[in-house]
Amino acid sequence: MEMEKFQGYTYVDGGVCAAKGYQANGLNCGLNSDPEKNDLALLVSDTECNAAAVYTTNKVKGAPIIVTKNHLAATGGKAKAVIANSKNANTCNADGEEKAQKMTELAAKVLGIDANDVIVASTGVIGQILPIEPIETHIDALAKGLSYDGNAKAVNAIMTTDTVPKEVAVTFMLGGKECTLGGMAKGSGMIHPNMATTLNFITSDVAISTELMQKALSDVTKITYNCLSIDGDTSTNDMVCVMANGLAGNEEVTAENTDYETFKQALYIVMMNLTKMLAKDGEGATKLIECTVEKAKDLDTAIIVAKSVIRSPLFKCAIFGEDANWGRVLCAIGYAEAEFDINKVDVDLASVKGVLPVCRNGAGVAFSEEFASEVLSADEIMVNVSLNAGDVTAKAWGCDLTYDYVKINGDYRS
Amino acid sequence: MEMEKFQGYTYVDGGVCAAKGYQANGLNCGLNSDPEKNDLALLVSDTECNAAAVYTTNKVKGAPIIVTKNHLAATGGKAKAVIANSKNANTCNADGEEKAQKMTELAAKVLGIDANDVIVASTGVIGQILPIEPIETHIDALAKGLSYDGNAKAVNAIMTTDTVPKEVAVTFMLGGKECTLGGMAKGSGMIHPNMATTLNFITSDVAISTELMQKALSDVTKITYNCLSIDGDTSTNDMVCVMANGLAGNEEVTAENTDYETFKQALYIVMMNLTKMLAKDGEGATKLIECTVEKAKDLDTAIIVAKSVIRSPLFKCAIFGEDANWGRVLCAIGYAEAEFDINKVDVDLASVKGVLPVCRNGAGVAFSEEFASEVLSADEIMVNVSLNAGDVTAKAWGCDLTYDYVKINGDYRS
Repeated sequence: MEMEKFQGYTYVDGGVCAAKGYQANGLNCGLNSDPEKNDLALLVSDTECNAAAVYTTNKVKGAPIIVTKNHLAATGGKAKAVIANSKNANTCNADGEEKAQKMTELAAKVLGIDANDVIVASTGVIGQILPIEPIETHIDALAKGLSYDGNAKAVNAIMTTDTVPKEVAVTFMLGGKECTLGGMAKGSGMIHPNMATTLNFITSDVAISTELMQKALSDVTKITYNCLSIDGDTSTNDMVCVMANGLAGNEEVTAENTDYETFKQALYIVMMNLTKMLAKDGEGATKLIECTVEKAKDLDTAIIVAKSVIRSPLFKCAIFGEDANWGRVLCAIGYAEAEFDINKVDVDLASVKGVLPVCRNGAGVAFSEEFASEVLSADEIMVNVSLNAGDVTAKAWGCDLTYDYVKINGDYRS
Repeated sequence: MEMEKFQGYTYVDGGVCAAKGYQANGLNCGLNSDPEKNDLALLVSDTECNAAAVYTTNKVKGAPIIVTKNHLAATGGKAKAVIANSKNANTCNADGEEKAQKMTELAAKVLGIDANDVIVASTGVIGQILPIEPIETHIDALAKGLSYDGNAKAVNAIMTTDTVPKEVAVTFMLGGKECTLGGMAKGSGMIHPNMATTLNFITSDVAISTELMQKALSDVTKITYNCLSIDGDTSTNDMVCVMANGLAGNEEVTAENTDYETFKQALYIVMMNLTKMLAKDGEGATKLIECTVEKAKDLDTAIIVAKSVIRSPLFKCAIFGEDANWGRVLCAIGYAEAEFDINKVDVDLASVKGVLPVCRNGAGVAFSEEFASEVLSADEIMVNVSLNAGDVTAKAWGCDLTYDYVKINGDYRS
């Protein structure tokens, strides 16, 4: 996936370890029967961080979500470490909160910090008791292996059905200081975010207040992760957390000034790219679908319409089949719960192979099936919708629906 | 599929021709390149009918929907005939309304009635110009072939990706007279109704006012078709119409009395069974999923939760894989947009093979995987959810998500 360039921001390697002062590690503690696949991650900042988070709105909330919320409330938005596991979501278990709390205590003890300074996250099968012993017996090794370039081991540990690790980091200048913000995310099913998406950890060395970080996170989540749908299922364990330790040495951002906008844009670049990576690596996906809705009367309308298109199972199947069945796009636009005039809607399908106008003023336009096949043969498909009712644009991201999605999810537990 | 028995109602053959005074026919006029598959249907009552209808809420509305609405408005809820075609939805075409109107005029002319007395419906690909010539050249043959047992030919003509025809009819007594109500429906994709579902025609010989028939239709649609989801895509051409010609000779039902309830129950029995048939024959489906939500505080809550479960792609895949992944049920209950206490929720999975409790008070209960596999090996799976918050029950119906759904929809237009 080629990443869009943004002036003033440079992509760098390192993921959650790209910013100053963050160590990470990951290993296999035995939750996953494949010894080559990590299942336990630890991420630690050299100094205390301001921390902000957004969580799933699913009424069924993983126990780690509850514990993390409690900890951030207790510290007033401070944190120093994250412990996370895959293979077991620790959700819908009677002893879930106890186990999640225990995970933070194990991490706190080995790091010599307070358990309230530890964020905890789990992902995997819902409703299976989480065995704490494997974590207990591997916590020392996990801490010993921490390093300033351990991001690859950590991201491997949070992957579930992901086929590739997802990491993005950028550097940028803020108040004359070089700053860095980087993140890692896991996919790749049960993704239809509401407030957050799957598991996502972002670290920065910027100095910024918890309040402003929370505001930036909520605003950016709305136009990135919340505009992603793999399958329409909102996970029980979605969580995005951002930590900032201030080691870049910039003057702390405490007002919505230019520095705040610079930070927020860095957050957008990282989260938008992670969103696209998640979409492209959606369970069973062969193609990324990006829907851009422009000329909407407001942001909510643009978002609702864009999400409706990328969520449509019929359209997702058509893209898998490389069939320019644009009627399904218009159908999905039509049932989007927003107010606009369907008779003003224009739609183009596009890719690196070309642009194919398929609909003007709500009605079809003739096109060459041969050229349509050419356009849809690419592995990143753009659906460009114009509502011709205003000047607001939003994007949403998804993927095609394939045999492999069914295969992966027909026997996930086994 | 074994049909549930209801006291006082007897299932009979005949579909839309079961009630007195209805003739039907269907033939291949060439819209469908397979000469063995009908694509054009005509349904006529011997006498004028009261008629009621519900339509899709999709902003993109098939041209036939607009013309039918206009006709029923012009006649004040009267109709005598229905003309319907498959293979082309006549939707998103600049000349759509003109063509739909022309279809009613062709039917009216050959039947010697007013075009406003004709209901028109189309189903198939969206956004392709409907050729009127094949209909024009076959309308005489279509009318000549009308018969009081032509229901099978008519239902064949409205089928698209359906693998079996869907017809249900019942007889019942009303004011000392034997009455009949029957219907036909088509599936089997782009089904996530809002106000109606796909194409559905119901005929009766009961005498009942248009107003009460409309009320009964709206009430029954809410708990039958609107509780069906095959794939989450709300069609542009959904329409259910009910016609009643009064030939049974009962005293006209004009108040919400016992007779009204008897009629409404007949409508429920026919529409509920058609709903289950549609779910079972959903595109690519191997299993019917019926979710019953009981002990809800109100009907809307019960319906919203039931629909959330049967819509979940992840749960649908798990049922295809016969995997008792009940965490996905609880996840879908959790993101349903309704108010209830997730910690009071109980869930059982069930089939003719047995009942498997999987969740009590929002937490998992241990179960035998062997017995779970046995229960899920059946081809009709029940998900029984108790919210433990009231005394209202609702059901929703869906199907598993399979390789064949992807295959069918990856190359539908071709």
